[in-house]
Amino acid sequence: MAVGSDTLPVMHPVAGFKLGVAECGIKKAGRKDLVVMALHPETAIAGVFTKNAFCAAPVQVAKTHLATGVPRYLVTNTGNANAGTGEQGLSDANRVCQALASLQSVEPDQVLPFSTGVIGENLPVEKILAGLPAACDSLTENGWEDAANGILTTDTRPKGASVKVSLRGTEITITGIAKGAGMIKPNMATMLGYVATDLAVAPELLQSWLVEVVDKSFNRITVDGDTSTNDSVILAATGQSQVSASELNDDELENFKAALLSVFVELAQSIVRDGEGATKFVSVLVEGGLNRDECLAVAYTVAESPLVKTALFASDPNWGRILAAVGRAGISDLDVDNIQILLDDVLIVEAGGRSPDYREEAGQMVMDQSEFTVRICLNRGGVSETVWTTDLSYEYVTINAEYRT
Amino acid sequence: MAVGSDTLPVMHPVAGFKLGVAECGIKKAGRKDLVVMALHPETAIAGVFTKNAFCAAPVQVAKTHLATGVPRYLVTNTGNANAGTGEQGLSDANRVCQALASLQSVEPDQVLPFSTGVIGENLPVEKILAGLPAACDSLTENGWEDAANGILTTDTRPKGASVKVSLRGTEITITGIAKGAGMIKPNMATMLGYVATDLAVAPELLQSWLVEVVDKSFNRITVDGDTSTNDSVILAATGQSQVSASELNDDELENFKAALLSVFVELAQSIVRDGEGATKFVSVLVEGGLNRDECLAVAYTVAESPLVKTALFASDPNWGRILAAVGRAGISDLDVDNIQILLDDVLIVEAGGRSPDYREEAGQMVMDQSEFTVRICLNRGGVSETVWTTDLSYEYVTINAEYRT
Repeated sequence: MAVGSDTLPVMHPVAGFKLGVAECGIKKAGRKDLVVMALHPETAIAGVFTKNAFCAAPVQVAKTHLATGVPRYLVTNTGNANAGTGEQGLSDANRVCQALASLQSVEPDQVLPFSTGVIGENLPVEKILAGLPAACDSLTENGWEDAANGILTTDTRPKGASVKVSLRGTEITITGIAKGAGMIKPNMATMLGYVATDLAVAPELLQSWLVEVVDKSFNRITVDGDTSTNDSVILAATGQSQVSASELNDDELENFKAALLSVFVELAQSIVRDGEGATKFVSVLVEGGLNRDECLAVAYTVAESPLVKTALFASDPNWGRILAAVGRAGISDLDVDNIQILLDDVLIVEAGGRSPDYREEAGQMVMDQSEFTVRICLNRGGVSETVWTTDLSYEYVTINAEYRT
Repeated sequence: MAVGSDTLPVMHPVAGFKLGVAECGIKKAGRKDLVVMALHPETAIAGVFTKNAFCAAPVQVAKTHLATGVPRYLVTNTGNANAGTGEQGLSDANRVCQALASLQSVEPDQVLPFSTGVIGENLPVEKILAGLPAACDSLTENGWEDAANGILTTDTRPKGASVKVSLRGTEITITGIAKGAGMIKPNMATMLGYVATDLAVAPELLQSWLVEVVDKSFNRITVDGDTSTNDSVILAATGQSQVSASELNDDELENFKAALLSVFVELAQSIVRDGEGATKFVSVLVEGGLNRDECLAVAYTVAESPLVKTALFASDPNWGRILAAVGRAGISDLDVDNIQILLDDVLIVEAGGRSPDYREEAGQMVMDQSEFTVRICLNRGGVSETVWTTDLSYEYVTINAEYRT
């Protein structure tokens, strides 16, 4: 199951960013499971990674290489996360980098490795090494769709977003792909995401932009509250448009950053729409909070409550479960009499109980939709935050009870 | 589904504590849904209640009456939680207290009300008032089993525990009942629990004991991470054994408190064993922590992870999910190389990855049991804590997607 459109938008190529795929046999036959991305030598690159203490081997290696080298290649395998693999895992991730570096005549620390799939099994390095030449041979700026398919695990559909912004008479492109459907509660990063632009951006500025847009996109989604060991998001700026961020004025920079954020939000939402077993895409909007932290605490408590999520699955406007979740979110001095709870624009809760005007049919009409907003007005401040989530269905249990069998 | 024995143990009566039940028609026909408990005038009583900010009307009234009056009666209805009901809810809870007080010739603030069931619907007060006389007529010290059945909602079985302790040549009895299967993550209290003893205990001491044992029993369980609006636990000491806590020496007090804790732990565990859709009863033991908070943070993160819980349901020793949950528990300076993860006595994870000696068959044998321990050794301090939890099954989704239909 999944919510919304299942086709990729038009994926505009980004000058200076090529993608190639291969089938190396980690996943079942007929599934591409190895993706190589090649960056123009002038490319600046930024990355954010999982905060899970059990950080996977490829994430550790990617962070080291990002700090020391000038990345030219990204290599991603699916079907195996190379996480919980200790020293062997680090050695395996490094062997993949060395092999690709040797094949493309760059240094090993110019390669960033990424893995996603089962945790705790050793990486099938030989299969990956055998697949690298074919992936490199297929490198092309038109490879986004194949790569979007090549990075999937339990996802049911590829995820991509692509926009063009006109700056100084030049069309600047931003295109990205992502994967992820379960173990989704990114913390400063998400499962895997790769976004590229042909704007020229200095690395420090690019990193600050990445942190900013990830905080409003991948860091605002939850499928099951589980933060993965392998979350990584990469933003690459190839500079091949010949337009540089350094020459843009404030308005132009804002235009670009708004476009960049829109790509990240679309990718992040597409992960929720394809959340394991998802039949609903639900925005949880918390308004009128004193600060960001309390808005997010309420939003995540509601978005991750198994009781709220099963009610979403049943299209049951069981608002008592939303109210109970708000009440246990740990907000101090919460005056429940001031709180309003709405489904889209239907006011359900006020003054500590059901609004006198509320009729269950109105709540039911909202819940019957596949996409809607749970809106919680705290009415005690001026801050609002949104988190995107999905429901908890039989299929979620099926997918996760049968994942390894 | 449920785990373990489905019959009540022998429920020893407690002198000075009577229980009566009636069917007042809130739940479906043939189901007792109203329970009255009567306390001897010399009884001391202690209570702990939910910390959910949306605290249900009966909880608010019970807390007020406990602070001002000398409780003589407890009245509990199931089928309706009288939560999220605003001013009307408070008025309804008070009407029930007034009616019972009038019937039994006590003051309204000598009655503590309790409700459990659907949130957000007004209490059917007339039905309850009509049922009170029959409940009072059936008051008996042998009423524990009927009352254990009368307080159930989605529970599939009654929950009770009863022990006797010999102190100064007198047999002191401790007997209790509880209900709860979903919306279970008590915070200083649980769903509903009522425990009585015939020891004489001063109210302040009784309250301190209650807080202490609840912290090690009802506050250590989680089915779905959702803290209810109605959690309440009552401990009553009737004094009718003619033995008083004030005359006991330290060893005797320890004996009694150990017995008291055993009753609370048995009741708390019985809620998890009957957790909605439960097919497993799992202890999550975190050892070697620096302090209580970090042990509990790790234990709850593992115990509430949907991915861990679906793996438990599938009897799949997918330890990568346990490892990922430990890693995202928010513990600072966690050296993952020092952590060990075991299923019962089977060592699976050490040095950041799978133990060289681990064989999946050994993990599978543990997981195939209906009861086992997930043991996480942090190896950085001397504190350990245990949390009890259950799995996430299809039936959990069924129960909660169809609760109101």
